[in-house]
Amino acid sequence: MAIQEIPAKSLDAKKFIEEQVKAIRDAVGQNLAVNALSGGVDSSTVTMIGHKALGDKLKTYFINNGLMREGEPERVVSLFNGLGVRVQMVDAREEFFTALKGLQDPEEKREAVTQTFYKRVFGRLVLETGAKHLLQGTILTDVDETVAGIKRQHNVFEQLGINPEEAFGYRILEPLVQLRKDGVRKVAEAVGLPSSVYGRMPFPGPALAARVIGEATPERIALVRKATAITEEMLASAGAFQCMAILHEDRVTGMRQGKRDFGLQIEIRCWDSLDARRAIPTRLEWETLESLSLRILDEVPDVVSVTYNIAPKPPSTMEAV
Amino acid sequence: MAIQEIPAKSLDAKKFIEEQVKAIRDAVGQNLAVNALSGGVDSSTVTMIGHKALGDKLKTYFINNGLMREGEPERVVSLFNGLGVRVQMVDAREEFFTALKGLQDPEEKREAVTQTFYKRVFGRLVLETGAKHLLQGTILTDVDETVAGIKRQHNVFEQLGINPEEAFGYRILEPLVQLRKDGVRKVAEAVGLPSSVYGRMPFPGPALAARVIGEATPERIALVRKATAITEEMLASAGAFQCMAILHEDRVTGMRQGKRDFGLQIEIRCWDSLDARRAIPTRLEWETLESLSLRILDEVPDVVSVTYNIAPKPPSTMEAV
Repeated sequence: MAIQEIPAKSLDAKKFIEEQVKAIRDAVGQNLAVNALSGGVDSSTVTMIGHKALGDKLKTYFINNGLMREGEPERVVSLFNGLGVRVQMVDAREEFFTALKGLQDPEEKREAVTQTFYKRVFGRLVLETGAKHLLQGTILTDVDETVAGIKRQHNVFEQLGINPEEAFGYRILEPLVQLRKDGVRKVAEAVGLPSSVYGRMPFPGPALAARVIGEATPERIALVRKATAITEEMLASAGAFQCMAILHEDRVTGMRQGKRDFGLQIEIRCWDSLDARRAIPTRLEWETLESLSLRILDEVPDVVSVTYNIAPKPPSTMEAV
Repeated sequence: MAIQEIPAKSLDAKKFIEEQVKAIRDAVGQNLAVNALSGGVDSSTVTMIGHKALGDKLKTYFINNGLMREGEPERVVSLFNGLGVRVQMVDAREEFFTALKGLQDPEEKREAVTQTFYKRVFGRLVLETGAKHLLQGTILTDVDETVAGIKRQHNVFEQLGINPEEAFGYRILEPLVQLRKDGVRKVAEAVGLPSSVYGRMPFPGPALAARVIGEATPERIALVRKATAITEEMLASAGAFQCMAILHEDRVTGMRQGKRDFGLQIEIRCWDSLDARRAIPTRLEWETLESLSLRILDEVPDVVSVTYNIAPKPPSTMEAV
């Protein structure tokens, strides 16, 4: 059966929330349900709707995969605690870095993050809780992109060759599957989330592993995490659709104490875009680019070179990995 | 004996040329001398002074190492023919690419180009001519940088463990060794060279091999040659000290026909500098950066991403390799 899209402009967010709350209650009954919260707008909205529907019968987990931005795990958990939602933080950093060890290829890295999340860390948690339902923040664009072979988020268990109901005894509920991102943002606002969530920049599924070219070791993730924090802070007022720092694998010549030395390069991308389908590099002020570059050179160890992306999408993509 | 520097401001270029012409004549006598012309300001100036001194008794070679810019070998030879200087072009492309095969490390690439030039291609030519003198465009900065361990151009034979006079029976003359670059430019103008030579942007010894990160194959050199031609053309009017295109080894995600694909990245550098010791990225117009990026994406095969360097020297260097 084809999924019936609800366009953002004809969406009654309050009514949509009520309907989804009822549907979740009807499906889950007196049992437990679980979901994973990443802090992105989709999983945050599902968490709020699920909490409205089930209260303490929804177990919400924040999986710290070691690939999050500076302070992100603590920020997300404390935001939801403030909204009355209990979130359990799970430290799975070692498991993710073990899975990523030695992987250079972007697809293999992506795959390792997905598999570790679903097959190992979160899959194990779901079993431990004995929950009969899993709430997932799939949106219609995820379904489209999965069909087109661009992404593989929708019904990820099926794609991993697992029928969750048969295998584990639980069903997947996807309350947002009729919406696009703009619809989700409306629902997020209506359900009481702050603008820091519903207005949040897009951030990729494999998190900072998608922001290093080559192997995502704890050391390299720490470097790009620092560069990301500086970049997001310095470009916060630029009004861009998305901005990011990327750690290259190539080494370039630099100078240290008057002598030639090889060091690292960080690439900055900052995008103007309406819907992420097309995008152009933001025409930042030269003063901003120069201060950003100096801070990265100063604060991120071993970096001797910083570049700014000047190619549009297409043929570029917004992320580099 | 320390070399006596002649600062540009106290340099009488006409008198300097007369003195060097006399010195070369006195040294060479009725024998043959040889030199290699690259088209750079130093070797061009030596060629002109040597020609003034020796006429047809100076054999000037242009070694085509396959690493030159678009049209450069033909342009240099025809310029000198127009000035009445016969230059013999030597096609050594295969020999250089064979030496560079499989080399990733910048120092090894540099070494391979130097060794192939001196020990093989040019060394062989000098022997074949039976010349007793070799004219070389060493300047005082080369000597300083060799002493400091930054460069290894000065008296390269000695560094390769060869005493040329003992080994081959010829001596090396370095008519420009008392000058810095600004002094050479004054002499170049006075000796009749056009501004396209004495005002030329610096270009590295290993040529385009220094403009690819990783292996310098004929295919990768062809890509960076094309990007270099576009960059130099589009930025000619920017009044920069130096500009360049660099082919990265890292591959980044791009879109082709609506599907994800991995492609190449070109980095543009354009420097404002007085003396190359310190430099800052030129604040180019956004329109210029955007047109440059679009032309490179359009005209250089497999390129999906273009960046602009925004880090100053130091800690960056002007070249990346």
